[in-house]
Amino acid sequence: MKRIDNFKTIIDKYDVIFFDAFGVLKNYEGLVPGIGKTFDYLKEQNKEYYIVTNDASRSPAQLADSYHKKGLHAITPDRIISSGMLTKEYLDLKVEGGIVAYLGTEDSAHYIESLGLHTIPISQVNSTNIDKINAVIFLDDEGFDWRNDLNIAVNVLRRRTIPAIVANTDNAYPVTVSEVSIAIGGLATMMEIVVGKKFIRFGKPDSQIFMFAYDLIRDYRPISKKDIVMVGDTLHTDILGGNKFGLDTVLVLSGNTLAHEVDNRITTTGIVPTYICESAVVEKDMF
Amino acid sequence: MKRIDNFKTIIDKYDVIFFDAFGVLKNYEGLVPGIGKTFDYLKEQNKEYYIVTNDASRSPAQLADSYHKKGLHAITPDRIISSGMLTKEYLDLKVEGGIVAYLGTEDSAHYIESLGLHTIPISQVNSTNIDKINAVIFLDDEGFDWRNDLNIAVNVLRRRTIPAIVANTDNAYPVTVSEVSIAIGGLATMMEIVVGKKFIRFGKPDSQIFMFAYDLIRDYRPISKKDIVMVGDTLHTDILGGNKFGLDTVLVLSGNTLAHEVDNRITTTGIVPTYICESAVVEKDMF
Amino acid sequence: MKRIDNFKTIIDKYDVIFFDAFGVLKNYEGLVPGIGKTFDYLKEQNKEYYIVTNDASRSPAQLADSYHKKGLHAITPDRIISSGMLTKEYLDLKVEGGIVAYLGTEDSAHYIESLGLHTIPISQVNSTNIDKINAVIFLDDEGFDWRNDLNIAVNVLRRRTIPAIVANTDNAYPVTVSEVSIAIGGLATMMEIVVGKKFIRFGKPDSQIFMFAYDLIRDYRPISKKDIVMVGDTLHTDILGGNKFGLDTVLVLSGNTLAHEVDNRITTTGIVPTYICESAVVEKDMF
Amino acid sequence: MKRIDNFKTIIDKYDVIFFDAFGVLKNYEGLVPGIGKTFDYLKEQNKEYYIVTNDASRSPAQLADSYHKKGLHAITPDRIISSGMLTKEYLDLKVEGGIVAYLGTEDSAHYIESLGLHTIPISQVNSTNIDKINAVIFLDDEGFDWRNDLNIAVNVLRRRTIPAIVANTDNAYPVTVSEVSIAIGGLATMMEIVVGKKFIRFGKPDSQIFMFAYDLIRDYRPISKKDIVMVGDTLHTDILGGNKFGLDTVLVLSGNTLAHEVDNRITTTGIVPTYICESAVVEKDMF
Repeated sequence: MKRIDNFKTIIDKYDVIFFDAFGVLKNYEGLVPGIGKTFDYLKEQNKEYYIVTNDASRSPAQLADSYHKKGLHAITPDRIISSGMLTKEYLDLKVEGGIVAYLGTEDSAHYIESLGLHTIPISQVNSTNIDKINAVIFLDDEGFDWRNDLNIAVNVLRRRTIPAIVANTDNAYPVTVSEVSIAIGGLATMMEIVVGKKFIRFGKPDSQIFMFAYDLIRDYRPISKKDIVMVGDTLHTDILGGNKFGLDTVLVLSGNTLAHEVDNRITTTGIVPTYICESAVVEKDMF
Repeated sequence: MKRIDNFKTIIDKYDVIFFDAFGVLKNYEGLVPGIGKTFDYLKEQNKEYYIVTNDASRSPAQLADSYHKKGLHAITPDRIISSGMLTKEYLDLKVEGGIVAYLGTEDSAHYIESLGLHTIPISQVNSTNIDKINAVIFLDDEGFDWRNDLNIAVNVLRRRTIPAIVANTDNAYPVTVSEVSIAIGGLATMMEIVVGKKFIRFGKPDSQIFMFAYDLIRDYRPISKKDIVMVGDTLHTDILGGNKFGLDTVLVLSGNTLAHEVDNRITTTGIVPTYICESAVVEKDMF
Repeated sequence: MKRIDNFKTIIDKYDVIFFDAFGVLKNYEGLVPGIGKTFDYLKEQNKEYYIVTNDASRSPAQLADSYHKKGLHAITPDRIISSGMLTKEYLDLKVEGGIVAYLGTEDSAHYIESLGLHTIPISQVNSTNIDKINAVIFLDDEGFDWRNDLNIAVNVLRRRTIPAIVANTDNAYPVTVSEVSIAIGGLATMMEIVVGKKFIRFGKPDSQIFMFAYDLIRDYRPISKKDIVMVGDTLHTDILGGNKFGLDTVLVLSGNTLAHEVDNRITTTGIVPTYICESAVVEKDMF
Repeated sequence: MKRIDNFKTIIDKYDVIFFDAFGVLKNYEGLVPGIGKTFDYLKEQNKEYYIVTNDASRSPAQLADSYHKKGLHAITPDRIISSGMLTKEYLDLKVEGGIVAYLGTEDSAHYIESLGLHTIPISQVNSTNIDKINAVIFLDDEGFDWRNDLNIAVNVLRRRTIPAIVANTDNAYPVTVSEVSIAIGGLATMMEIVVGKKFIRFGKPDSQIFMFAYDLIRDYRPISKKDIVMVGDTLHTDILGGNKFGLDTVLVLSGNTLAHEVDNRITTTGIVPTYICESAVVEKDMF
C-alpha cells in the first residue's frame, strides 16, 4: 500500500484548496463526519478554498444552501464553481437569441434562464417552435420522462444543426453505499452515439472548469498553479483533470476510491495523485 | 452514381435469399408497396428465402402474424431468423436454472420463457431474489419505465457477475419518414459504458445470426455460401455482416440508405455491397 | 478465490476440446511443461481436439511443424483452425481477381496466395498498380517497415474503396514473462481510426472462427455445442468468444490471466468461465 | 451551400486573431499564396495575432524560422502557441527530476530539455535506467524506429506508473494534395489502447491550449473572449475547440475541409463555425 499522507500537513503547503463535493465533503448520507473542522482550520489559517463540482442540477446559491441546511456554513455561493456555470458562460458567449431546450429539472434550467435566453423543457419542443431551438442542454437526470423526452431530443438534434451541451460529464453517481444512478452524462453519452454528432461537455477532467476557478482567483489576487491543490475522490475526473491542469492533487479514500483498491486502480489507470489521504477531515487536536 | 442493378436479375442467380425486414419488406407505414410480387416470384421460381432480423421484440410466430395481417402470407414463422432466437439458444446452452430478468414487453419475454427458465421484468428484482438472477436480457425498448428500470439493471449488473445479453444491436429505428426512436441496443450501449462490463450481443452484423440461418438450411439440404444473397437497407448491419460471413450482398435504397447519399456512404464507411437496387420489389411484368 | 477445478475431470465430460495456443500449450519459453501428457491422455481416451488460434502469421502446416520441432507431435495441420484460414475463405468467396496487398511476412502471405490471387507486400503498391488492389490484409507485425508501409496502407485505403481484412484481433502478445509486443491487431486498430473506415476482423472472440471449427467437425460426425469445451488463458477472447458461441469454457492460469488477479478480472469484466484450472496439463498419475 | 463570408470584413470586427498553421497559413507546398497580404493588413490595422498549433515537432523559434525562410516575417516566436509549450509547462509543474523518455526528433526534445530535465530517446531506455524514467512524451512521428521504439514505449508504460504525455492530438497530417502521414497523435492513440492506461493530451480541440494563448494576452492587456476569433481549416480541432472555449470561429476552405463537402461535414458532425471563408487571405485591393 502506498503511503497515506496527513491531510493537514498537505494543506499547510498550499494557499488555495479546490475540493470536489461528492465523496469529499458529503456523501449519500449527508456531510462527511468531521468535515466542518476542516473549514474551521482553513478559516483559522486564512486559506482560500473553492468547491469545483460537476453538479449542474442547481445554481451555486441553491448548492450553498444545501450545505447550510446540513450545518456547514463555510460554503457560500461565491465559493462554488460548477459545470453549470461553464454552460451558462457558453450560452452567453455563443448562443444569440432563440430558445434553449433542456433536459433536467426546472431548478437546473432556472439558473441558465437568468441570462435572458428563453428556455423550455425538451418536452415542449414541437413543429411550431423546433426551428427556433438554438441549443439543447443536458443538465440533470431528474425532472423529465426519459423515454419520451430523450426520443424528442434525438430527433431535435438530428433535424437541427445546433450545439448539444452536457453540463455534467459523470456517467453515474452513488445513491447508497453500494448503489448508483445513471447521471445525465451517461444519458448524453448514449445520445451522442445515437445522434452521431459531437456534443460539447463541461466538467472535470476537462481543463476548462479548472481554468474558470483559476481565473476567478486571479481577478482579485496573483496566484500560481503551484499554490493550489485539488482534493478529490475520483481518479479519472478530479485527479486526472487536476494533474493535467498542472495542479498538485490529493486522492481521498472517503468516496469512489476505496482503500483496498487504490493501489490497483492507480496502476491500471496510470492516473497518479501527488498525495493519498484517508479523507479531507482535519482532526481538531491537530491544530 | 454507381450502377443500379435489376433485383430480379440478381435473385435469378441465387438459390436462397436472406431479407432484412425493416426498410426492405416494410417501413413505418406498412409493407413496401409491391413487395408481395417478389414473394410470388420467389414461389414461382422455387427459391428459398429467410427473414434475418435484429427484431427481438416478438416471437417468430408473432412476427409472421404481423405480416399476415398486412396481407403478406408468404412469411411464415419457419422463415424468420431473429436475434431473439440466438438469445434463446444462448440461455438454453449457458444459463442453468435461476431467474432471468428482462427489459422489454411481456411478449418479448414470453418467447424466451418457453425454455423453462423463470423470467421476471427487471422491475421485480429486489433484495430477496437478486442472488437468484442468472442473466439480464435486453429485448425491447418498450414495456418498462426507462428511468426506474435502467437504474435497477445497472445495480443488478454491478452486484452480480452474470451475463448481460442484448438481443438487438441497433441503436435506433425509424418511426416516421424523418424521425427515429432509441432502440434497446442504444440503451444497452449506455448501460455497458456505465456498468463497465462486457455485454453479449446477438444480431447483424455479427456472424452468429447468419450462421444460425445457414445451419438451419443445412439441416435439410446441402448449400454453399455462394448460393445465398443477403438483401438489406443498412450498410453497417446487413451489408457488413453479410460480406464478412462470405455472402454476396444487395443494398436496397428503400430504407436507411437513400439514393442521393449511397455513393458517399459506401466511400466513407468502406462497406461495399455486391449490388445496389432501388428496392427488393420484382415488378409483375418482369416475369 | 473461486474454486480451482481439476482439468482431467473437466475434459472427461466432453467429446471435443478446443485449445487456444499461446498461454495454454506454449509460451515465450517454449511448450508449457507437461503439456505433452495432456495429448497422450486425449489420445488414450479417444477425445478429439483442435487448436483455435488468432495466429495468422503462418500456415497450419508451418504452425504444426513448430510444435513438432518442440517435441509435440500430436498437433497436426488438420487440428489447427486459425484466423488466417478465415481470411483465406473470405478472399476466396468475396475477392474476385486483382491484387491483394498485405502487411506481414512472406510466409504469412504465401498461405493466402495459394488461392490463386496475386499477393504483393504493401511496399510494392505504387501508382501503376494501386487501381488493381482489391483488398488489403493485415497478417503479421513482422516482415515490413512499420513507418513506411503503414503510411502506404493508409493512403491505399483512403484512395480505394476496398475491404481491409485483419487476420488477428489481438492488440499485443507476450514476448517474455513481463514484456509484450504490439500485434498486427493493434496496428490495425490504429489504421482503422486514422482511415475512418470499417475493417473486417477475423479471430476470437468473434463467433466466426468457432463456427469454422464447429463446421469442420460436423463434416465428418454429428456434434452438439454441449459436447465441446473451449480452453483458453484470455477472458476477452477465448472465454468471451466461447461463451457467446454457446460452449462451456475453461480459463487456465498459465498465461495472460494470473492466479492472484483472476477473481478481480472476472468481476470487473463480467466475463465468466464455466471452470478455472491451473493449466491444461493432465498429470501422468491422474490416468 | 452556406453563405461564404468575406475574411477582411470578419477580422475587422475583432481585436485578436488566432490562426491555425497547416491548411490556413501553409500547406504541403509552402505558404498559402497571398497569405503575406493578410499579415500586412493586420499590421496596418494594428491587430494582434497568434498561431495556435498542434505542432510539437519544433520549438517556437524553429517554427518561426521556417516561416521566415519562406518569406513570411510577421510570424515571430512570441506569436506562436504550440502544444509543445503546454507539454513543457506540464513537465515543469508536475515532473520533479528524473529522466523523460521521448518519441520524436532530437529537435523536438531539445525544446523540452531546456527545462533542466534530462531527456533521452525511448530507444535508450534499458534495465539500468528504466526506474528513473518519470514521464514518456510523444512529440513527433519522425526521428525514431517505429517498430523497435513503440514496443519499448509500451513496455516502459506497462512497468512504470508514470504519465504519458501526447503533445499533438492529430491522428494524421497531409503530405500531398491527396496523401497523409500518420501523426504522433495516431501512434499515441494505438499505444493508449495497447497499454490500457490514460494518456494526457495537449492540443486543439482541448481548451487548455486556447487558455494558454488567452492568458498570454492577458499578461499585457485586458481582453474578452468576444474580442478574439479563431481561424482554422479543421472542424473537429480548430472549430470545435474554439467554439467550446467561447470564441467566434472561422472555417477556411484552404485545407482539410473542401468547398464541396463543407455543408455535409457541418451537418453530420454538428460542429458549426460562426463564419465560412474561402481562405484567410485578405486581397490587396481590399484595403
